[in-house]
Amino acid sequence: MNTTTTTTAEQPTLDNIHHLAIAVTDVTASVAWYQAQFKCDVAYQDATWALLKFANTSLALVIPDQHPPHIGFVVDDAARFGELTTHRDGTRSVYVNDPDGNALEMMARESVRAG
Amino acid sequence: MNTTTTTTAEQPTLDNIHHLAIAVTDVTASVAWYQAQFKCDVAYQDATWALLKFANTSLALVIPDQHPPHIGFVVDDAARFGELTTHRDGTRSVYVNDPDGNALEMMARESVRAG
Repeated sequence: MNTTTTTTAEQPTLDNIHHLAIAVTDVTASVAWYQAQFKCDVAYQDATWALLKFANTSLALVIPDQHPPHIGFVVDDAARFGELTTHRDGTRSVYVNDPDGNALEMMARESVRAG
Repeated sequence: MNTTTTTTAEQPTLDNIHHLAIAVTDVTASVAWYQAQFKCDVAYQDATWALLKFANTSLALVIPDQHPPHIGFVVDDAARFGELTTHRDGTRSVYVNDPDGNALEMMARESVRAG
């Protein structure tokens, strides 16, 4: 008997945008501003960047000379884009540029926790 | 007897990021490039912009002097941010800048179709 895999609503056939990171000049002030405008949770914050969790994806606020603005995608076979780096949170990824120089982080699906 | 509202998984308590729009110079070439890298669907495309649907949000590729790069949020009471404009797709929104000049589109929740 074959083993079948059930695709759930949490594992769609389209790729996921894990986060986007935009440039700010003052992380503390920007976190306060975003929390005043939106219903979002602060998942991480230090002097150089913060991570705001929204319902469907996350928004990183970054000091650009510390952390470059980019978009993070969860993809299959991320290594096709280059050598993966393992980060402190356990995710593995590689940065590439699109044809216009937009920075994209290609994150290995198996290294990204659900939710 | 009071009327109670049930919150479903599709109506989370955190706000949603509806789309992000990034600058490209050639919409046709960029759509082809993104489709080659990612599992995404082309929801709309013309010479000035395209909308790529991902599992959890959408990515717009825009010619910046036609459509400014921005992030679109679905929010309650969008009119608190200013006068709403109704777009051809029926959504109503207003653009504001964050403290660093990042452009944000505040979209009225009741004008955005589910999914």
